[in-house]
Amino acid sequence: MPGETAETAPAENATSQPEEPEKPAADGEAAKAAEDAAPEPEAPPEKEVRTVVLSGFGGINKVKVMRRTEPKPAEGEILVRVKACGLNFLDLMVRQGNLENPPKCPAVMGYECAGIVEALGEGVTGFEVGAHVLALSNLGAWCELVSVPAKHCFQIPMRMSFEDAAAFPINFLTAYIMLFEIGNLKKGKSVLVHSAGGGVGLAVAQLCKTVENVTVFGTASPHKHDTIKEHFDHLFLSGSDYTAEIRKISPSGVDIVLDCLCGDDTNKGIALLKPMGKYVLYGSSNIVTGETRSFFSSAKAWWQVDKVNPVKLYDENKTVGGFQLLRLLYDQNQPELIQETMATLLDMFANDRIKPVIDSCWAFEEVGEAMQKMHDHQNIGKLILDPGMDKTHKTPAETPDTSDADEVKGQQNEETPPAEAEAAAKE
Amino acid sequence: MPGETAETAPAENATSQPEEPEKPAADGEAAKAAEDAAPEPEAPPEKEVRTVVLSGFGGINKVKVMRRTEPKPAEGEILVRVKACGLNFLDLMVRQGNLENPPKCPAVMGYECAGIVEALGEGVTGFEVGAHVLALSNLGAWCELVSVPAKHCFQIPMRMSFEDAAAFPINFLTAYIMLFEIGNLKKGKSVLVHSAGGGVGLAVAQLCKTVENVTVFGTASPHKHDTIKEHFDHLFLSGSDYTAEIRKISPSGVDIVLDCLCGDDTNKGIALLKPMGKYVLYGSSNIVTGETRSFFSSAKAWWQVDKVNPVKLYDENKTVGGFQLLRLLYDQNQPELIQETMATLLDMFANDRIKPVIDSCWAFEEVGEAMQKMHDHQNIGKLILDPGMDKTHKTPAETPDTSDADEVKGQQNEETPPAEAEAAAKE
Repeated sequence: MPGETAETAPAENATSQPEEPEKPAADGEAAKAAEDAAPEPEAPPEKEVRTVVLSGFGGINKVKVMRRTEPKPAEGEILVRVKACGLNFLDLMVRQGNLENPPKCPAVMGYECAGIVEALGEGVTGFEVGAHVLALSNLGAWCELVSVPAKHCFQIPMRMSFEDAAAFPINFLTAYIMLFEIGNLKKGKSVLVHSAGGGVGLAVAQLCKTVENVTVFGTASPHKHDTIKEHFDHLFLSGSDYTAEIRKISPSGVDIVLDCLCGDDTNKGIALLKPMGKYVLYGSSNIVTGETRSFFSSAKAWWQVDKVNPVKLYDENKTVGGFQLLRLLYDQNQPELIQETMATLLDMFANDRIKPVIDSCWAFEEVGEAMQKMHDHQNIGKLILDPGMDKTHKTPAETPDTSDADEVKGQQNEETPPAEAEAAAKE
Repeated sequence: MPGETAETAPAENATSQPEEPEKPAADGEAAKAAEDAAPEPEAPPEKEVRTVVLSGFGGINKVKVMRRTEPKPAEGEILVRVKACGLNFLDLMVRQGNLENPPKCPAVMGYECAGIVEALGEGVTGFEVGAHVLALSNLGAWCELVSVPAKHCFQIPMRMSFEDAAAFPINFLTAYIMLFEIGNLKKGKSVLVHSAGGGVGLAVAQLCKTVENVTVFGTASPHKHDTIKEHFDHLFLSGSDYTAEIRKISPSGVDIVLDCLCGDDTNKGIALLKPMGKYVLYGSSNIVTGETRSFFSSAKAWWQVDKVNPVKLYDENKTVGGFQLLRLLYDQNQPELIQETMATLLDMFANDRIKPVIDSCWAFEEVGEAMQKMHDHQNIGKLILDPGMDKTHKTPAETPDTSDADEVKGQQNEETPPAEAEAAAKE
């Protein structure tokens, strides 16, 4: 796949117009909050914040750093001073317009972030200004200040870095729900996960190791194997005949297959299940083959998926399912499972049973470069955007103690020497 | 469905030749055991036992009570003196030859029984002669003496009646594995089960009630509603527009659908799932519409099942699976899950959290009548065959104390006055 990306524009292009004063049309809630505030006679001049905006669907040059009016929290919302944002493969698909319901552009990008509670909207209880939180947002998360519904906001321990916190929700919620809510993982079982070096892949590996005697198979690009091999029992090359390799080790197959590839890998995954095995589709990265949307790749990936006859599943004692976290949260409005699961996960983090693996951190202006790295499958673990950072990307400090008062003011990690960070970021 | 059975032969025909001395060809193990015993000079004459044999595929008249040589336990097997046998819908399908791999006829019928350990084959540990057990058998269970692999045999508490024990394994294992291993049932969830008045349906209802605040929907024939309504939150008529009725109560649908009907009910069940919902196919009773196999009914039921696109499951956060207990045990050779689950279930029984509902007990000679009752959906709970019983069927005594020495000799329950039993068996 990396070989197919030669035609993509250099990542620098994406950030050629940083701090452009052009403002995207203010969206509903923020605009309303601004209007509500307007009639007040002593109102100070409106402040602006920096944000990452998708100006239209396409390549990296469609992603721009812009300024917008500071949002205010509506009723039931929490205003968060953002210290770190998570980048997901989904953001690449959004950029390409490769979704069933793509957003209206211009739109502030991003689905997850972490930071400090700056203000509480009317009716919000259970949170205090100054608390450290992570948040899920239905787009809009890549901004210095974000207002999110309280039900999608979670207090984090003070010792959890903002980078860990921003890397946490989408990857670990997805991994946990697939393994335990759908896959019903128990001791002695085996799991296969693709993109083993990505955020979900490494979260799956860590969660599997919280259960006794679980065998974890993964597929990943060759250059990642050395770095991630400690997390997996068996690693295979992406694009290789992994089913044959797995059958050599476990002739009867595997108990749980977690598939973010789709296409023919869906058919392979279902065929690879043991009796009582469970297959879960949670992405379709096979449809992304270049910088911009390819109708051919999309069509090929969908067409290659064989439909499944429930009677065959009955004959074979198999289960096939799919999981889409954001669909569950925003279209299906089911926050309860997410809230329960997040509580469990934060508890596991507090007990040092899981910890996000972070590949590298990037300034807002470097978002294009970060996206290209993910597209090229060069990241090992999570890519983080840091709104307080200069243009020089870096790797995370070793779990900095964010309980320090200075860090509450948003200064954490900035002391990481750029040269050292640069070196560590290279794999 | 009951209306479609008018052409079936009267049940009495099935038992018109009881105790026929005709012997089925002795099958492998029993024959071998008999040969091994033969050369011994002082060997007593071979004893015979009564058994229910399928002479060929078709209607009730193909099921005959016959005598065969007493089996002897092979290595790793346990010889059980059978006191009660379970009748399942699957037995009707076997009789019709309505399976992918139908057995060779003549064949001793039956998949489950309970009784007393009579002898242990070589290498068997953990069991003692005289212990009460229940057993799963890959056919062959409807016989006065059965030899089964020790791994499919489970010791039962002395206070568990043989009828309860014979009613227990297939229904409760199926219900438990579907609810907890595939469906991942948790508090606050909702479950739909068809054939709510049958053995699995009532086991599902009881197991659901062991979890806090679970809503149980069922479909059943109208005449069963009064008797089973205590077990269900909402009951609908078989064949009614139950999905519309359920949507009135729960607009978003249900969390778990357990479907033994197949055909168009499969499509309805999948459509009825909530986000994160799980559908499990565990039977295809819609294909049985008359006394003998109907190719039209089979074809219709299979053709009506829509194939499922995994991408749609991903879009909708749904899971579709199937479960076939006997396939898991015998074709896929996975006894571990069964063993663990049986231990859990027997513990639940010992703590009075679950108890099989028994419709009625029947003599071997009445097997045709019992099959017809099941075919006509007239049973509420389990139909039991009792090899020690006269031709008069009866309802079970109230959990008789089988620890009594007399009962070990196979006399339990025979004191139930036939008239009273007959009355109670009528719904």
